[in-house]
Amino acid sequence: MPRQTYAVILAGGGGTRLWPASRRRRPKQFLALAPGGRTLLAATVARVRPLMPLERVLVVTAAEQTPETKAALPGLPADNLVVEPVARNTAPAIALAARELLRRGAGDAVMAVLPSDHLVADESAFQRVLEQALSAGERHLVTVGIRPTRPETGYGYLEVGTRKDGAASAVERFVEKPDLARARQYVEAGNFLWNSGMFFFRADRLLAETQRHLPEVAAALDGSYADGPAISIDYGIMEKAEDIWAVPGEFGWNDVGTWTALADVHPDDPAGNVRVGGPLLALAAARNVVVGEQLVALVGVDDLVVVATGDAILIAPRSRAQDVRAIVAELEKRKMDSYL
Amino acid sequence: MPRQTYAVILAGGGGTRLWPASRRRRPKQFLALAPGGRTLLAATVARVRPLMPLERVLVVTAAEQTPETKAALPGLPADNLVVEPVARNTAPAIALAARELLRRGAGDAVMAVLPSDHLVADESAFQRVLEQALSAGERHLVTVGIRPTRPETGYGYLEVGTRKDGAASAVERFVEKPDLARARQYVEAGNFLWNSGMFFFRADRLLAETQRHLPEVAAALDGSYADGPAISIDYGIMEKAEDIWAVPGEFGWNDVGTWTALADVHPDDPAGNVRVGGPLLALAAARNVVVGEQLVALVGVDDLVVVATGDAILIAPRSRAQDVRAIVAELEKRKMDSYL
Repeated sequence: MPRQTYAVILAGGGGTRLWPASRRRRPKQFLALAPGGRTLLAATVARVRPLMPLERVLVVTAAEQTPETKAALPGLPADNLVVEPVARNTAPAIALAARELLRRGAGDAVMAVLPSDHLVADESAFQRVLEQALSAGERHLVTVGIRPTRPETGYGYLEVGTRKDGAASAVERFVEKPDLARARQYVEAGNFLWNSGMFFFRADRLLAETQRHLPEVAAALDGSYADGPAISIDYGIMEKAEDIWAVPGEFGWNDVGTWTALADVHPDDPAGNVRVGGPLLALAAARNVVVGEQLVALVGVDDLVVVATGDAILIAPRSRAQDVRAIVAELEKRKMDSYL
Repeated sequence: MPRQTYAVILAGGGGTRLWPASRRRRPKQFLALAPGGRTLLAATVARVRPLMPLERVLVVTAAEQTPETKAALPGLPADNLVVEPVARNTAPAIALAARELLRRGAGDAVMAVLPSDHLVADESAFQRVLEQALSAGERHLVTVGIRPTRPETGYGYLEVGTRKDGAASAVERFVEKPDLARARQYVEAGNFLWNSGMFFFRADRLLAETQRHLPEVAAALDGSYADGPAISIDYGIMEKAEDIWAVPGEFGWNDVGTWTALADVHPDDPAGNVRVGGPLLALAAARNVVVGEQLVALVGVDDLVVVATGDAILIAPRSRAQDVRAIVAELEKRKMDSYL
């Protein structure tokens, strides 16, 4: 393990794939979808706590989400909130956090950059991988790659070569979301990993790479952040830089990309119904995923996703959980902004 | 038409067939299920208004439901609420209203006794039948019988003979809810009508019949109402008395016995979805019945009943709408009283 490590948790994102629970002003990381009724954000912080004290956890958030972020993390020192004036995607957000570390005299610290809206089933395994990736992060630009368990077409992949440095393998290339045939090849080949969105590097190294590959982002750090470009670290740095390494991980990673993903991490009842939130009464009803605080009574329905909030309810077959996007698009088209 | 007529609307009932909207403290008549977003009770009163002024509309309600009844009927004179100390079924409730008419010097008035929780699609036709029944009610004990449109096994039937008095036919007998084979025979026979629960007679006549057939009920009117028996007018008087007549009616009568009944009286969208309450977004979803104020987004589901309140949501296939009773029974068993 490096002498000094920090967790940098990216909590400024948006997204509507978990509508109606996720909204413009209440993105996914603030939803209580982690086991025990915690928010995904709080669970993310709890997951790194065995490796570093709360004093060394920075949370990057957008200005408008500051109150909700503080509420979700009551123990976090106020100074450890890194506030983006406006959301500008991951590359500027991470550079902002790296500069904060420089300001603290910790430019040589290794940052573990973590999304705030994922779930991890096996936390011990996750922490072991985190230690390996932090070690490799002293010398390289490192990501954690998830060993694929299915030919998923919704993720990007990393192809790794045979060169090794400790637990890390050299990344040969980044691959965009593949079609099914290609995804099957990747799973079979064995040297492809899912891009998890976790990154490990020294703060000063990241700032140097930002200066080199994204000079406009670097400039925006000293000028007007809002005027800088919005760009992801994958596209802006990782896919262009040399010296990219990946530590493979298997720890029940789940990006909670659709409502059905909850079925992978939450326990189910004997009929296979998964309930997150309030009580469920299921009569002759099986394999439903039900989210929300209200009592939900199901009679004779199977394989549904049901998500209820105070002002909106979604009902769809599990197989069409990704069609939530069509609902959100329709709401935008009809200018039903109060539901967005 | 008789010289003096009164409507007596029975609004003291309970029932859980429309759970989760109907609860012990908010029975069906208080639900906004009538077209235009009115409560069934308000729609019942509006339906008789072309025939009699609000001054001659009495509403019988249970003491605990008085505030909700007043709220549902803002124009009703306070004196026209007839309050049952406790609910004792229809025979005592109607006798209480008849005695109120006697007190007003209107013992010779004809009462139109009407349930408060039904829907009528064709109000003009209903009003014509009401006039005929009020006329017959000057001389007889009269009920309105609905011409059956299907072999319904959930209703009682009236068998009428060939004797006529104006629009009324003499009732030969009352028939309890039949099995399907018998119900089919009744529909085919042509001289069987559904018992609608509407009754027409002079106030003094009803009190005399009560004295004769239900002396304990008559005694309870002068003593302790709560100590009298709870008994329906069908069972206690109509099935025993002589001189029972029925006026046949066809006016889109609907007793809203299950959630699917709403599909018969509310308009549907081009995909056959019926919406009562807030907005609906239906993508590849057909023939659903959706009730509640929240936005409901349906994707790829057909033939469901969805009913949402602030604290509870029901989802079932339309074909199992009657299984709401099983849900209510389960809630009782689990002592989840706040949902009852």
